[in-house]
Amino acid sequence: MAKKLGNQTIKFDLPPSIVSTASTVGPKEGKGPLSSYFDVVLHDPLWGEDSWEKAESKMVKKTIERVIEKGNLTPEDIDYIFAGDLLNQLTASTFGIRGLAVPFFGLFGACSTMAEAITLGAMAIDGGFANYIVAEASSHFCSSEKQFRFPLELGNQRPLTASWTVTGSGAVILGKFGPSPYVTYATTGKIVDLGIKDPMNMGAAMAPAAADTIITHFEDTGFLPSDYDLIITGDLGSVGRELLLELLRKHNYDIENIYTDCGIEIFDSVTQDTHAGGSGCGCCAVTLAGYLYKEMKNNKWNRILFVPTGALMSPGSTQQGESIPGIAHAVTIENNWA
Amino acid sequence: MAKKLGNQTIKFDLPPSIVSTASTVGPKEGKGPLSSYFDVVLHDPLWGEDSWEKAESKMVKKTIERVIEKGNLTPEDIDYIFAGDLLNQLTASTFGIRGLAVPFFGLFGACSTMAEAITLGAMAIDGGFANYIVAEASSHFCSSEKQFRFPLELGNQRPLTASWTVTGSGAVILGKFGPSPYVTYATTGKIVDLGIKDPMNMGAAMAPAAADTIITHFEDTGFLPSDYDLIITGDLGSVGRELLLELLRKHNYDIENIYTDCGIEIFDSVTQDTHAGGSGCGCCAVTLAGYLYKEMKNNKWNRILFVPTGALMSPGSTQQGESIPGIAHAVTIENNWA
Repeated sequence: MAKKLGNQTIKFDLPPSIVSTASTVGPKEGKGPLSSYFDVVLHDPLWGEDSWEKAESKMVKKTIERVIEKGNLTPEDIDYIFAGDLLNQLTASTFGIRGLAVPFFGLFGACSTMAEAITLGAMAIDGGFANYIVAEASSHFCSSEKQFRFPLELGNQRPLTASWTVTGSGAVILGKFGPSPYVTYATTGKIVDLGIKDPMNMGAAMAPAAADTIITHFEDTGFLPSDYDLIITGDLGSVGRELLLELLRKHNYDIENIYTDCGIEIFDSVTQDTHAGGSGCGCCAVTLAGYLYKEMKNNKWNRILFVPTGALMSPGSTQQGESIPGIAHAVTIENNWA
Repeated sequence: MAKKLGNQTIKFDLPPSIVSTASTVGPKEGKGPLSSYFDVVLHDPLWGEDSWEKAESKMVKKTIERVIEKGNLTPEDIDYIFAGDLLNQLTASTFGIRGLAVPFFGLFGACSTMAEAITLGAMAIDGGFANYIVAEASSHFCSSEKQFRFPLELGNQRPLTASWTVTGSGAVILGKFGPSPYVTYATTGKIVDLGIKDPMNMGAAMAPAAADTIITHFEDTGFLPSDYDLIITGDLGSVGRELLLELLRKHNYDIENIYTDCGIEIFDSVTQDTHAGGSGCGCCAVTLAGYLYKEMKNNKWNRILFVPTGALMSPGSTQQGESIPGIAHAVTIENNWA
């Protein structure tokens, strides 16, 4: 039986293995610093489809099929798919997954979705309900801009605090047994809303939630920053990064020398004109499936804390003058556990 | 440890107790046949707020606070909230829950969300990760019409196959220990899409998914229709009801004498002009929290199969000519188990 540590953390008794990962990204991501870690780089963000939404669904489908194949499994071996995206009513996920005939749990945690999927999937395995699960998340720059911001054709200017939604789908298979790395702890976040209202500055809206979850993780587990080789948030970007470091210092945690953010790693913000950095459910999903997983396999790091962050707003809530609630979920991934 | 039965069903070893339930509904639901079972009936669908979305968030907040209070618990006792709604980016749930300081998993299963929440919550408890969880789902007629159909001010006519979105929030607390009834089995659905494209006939779009899940449940568990006192789908309405019965008969299952649908029960379709019946995440959530739970406490039924159904479409997918994928999750709730 798994143990609950403190109020928000669980420690898995038989930590699920990350059996395989797969990632599909768009052309811009394929020109970024992490390019060589991705399985598939699209030449065309429409990928032969007649809408961006359909292209995103195709990424979901192909990435899940690939992660199953890379795990030497078949869809019949998969007990559940846990997946989500940013589109209204999870359009990308549901239309991508509908042909797969695998029981499906749709999730929405904005850009924290990948950690939500891994946490619930790991619970399903460690709890004895599943042998293999797929956790997947996606986003698409064009479908997101259309839905959340302005039509691309307008060519709107973007403030420097704005992030750039990643076009990508990342998936992992968790298995009851398998090789390293393993998912060993999960700290599930509460919603934190300090009143930030600018949807062009989501890093600032999400940083307090990330700080809350990371501090709680340290308190619940007894870990210190020095117990980690890497702490990587989802997509706070360069603005949120500074706020997070400051918030943690106020609580006497200095993580600066082991900390980065998926949104900072995935693009070269200077040459790629991405301002604060990458964002979107796909951002941390492909960074985990590509860069983080492969470098853990290379033993670059032994224990990492993966902390996707979500801005739980909608265009409607912003139009109605609401602030932006944030959430962050932390998952510990490590090569050795005893 | 829980047992997996067949491909899609789990049997809980220590079935979670439904510790308490709470429901809040709108004025129309308060005039329907189930009126006396609800905790709170609103006189005004705006509930003093300045938008329908904010009114729905208020329903979520107040219903969750009430279910915690009715369980003689405090928010600190709750390990996780599992919740969802129909609004873009789960606006109703996230803004309703943000003040509660409880770890939160956002779910989207369209009108199947309540079963998704109960299944994942029961897994969290039986797996040893939680002592108490809240499962909640909501919908609001006005926010749904605005988002999915037409502005109310247009006064559009509705075809007789259309359903009427329930204004309501229903919540349950599941506990590791507690009185009957208990959640004993969960059969998680796959997405089924037979190509129905009419968003004004969601019963037809969802009936094949309901049939698939119910048949799988019988096959996985060995139960026959006669093992159940009641089988109740989420919101197939009167059109989907007939299709479901026909599909099941083709597989030699006749459930007609123990079968009904939450969408049929919640309104008097003749006097209340609701056409095919009630729908929305809130429909089955308040029917469970009110009618089903209270009558199980009265021993009207010993074992029921609760099968919320979801139409996994968005306005965008319909505009792009897509069909409507359906999903249904089944949960067995019973007073006695051995």
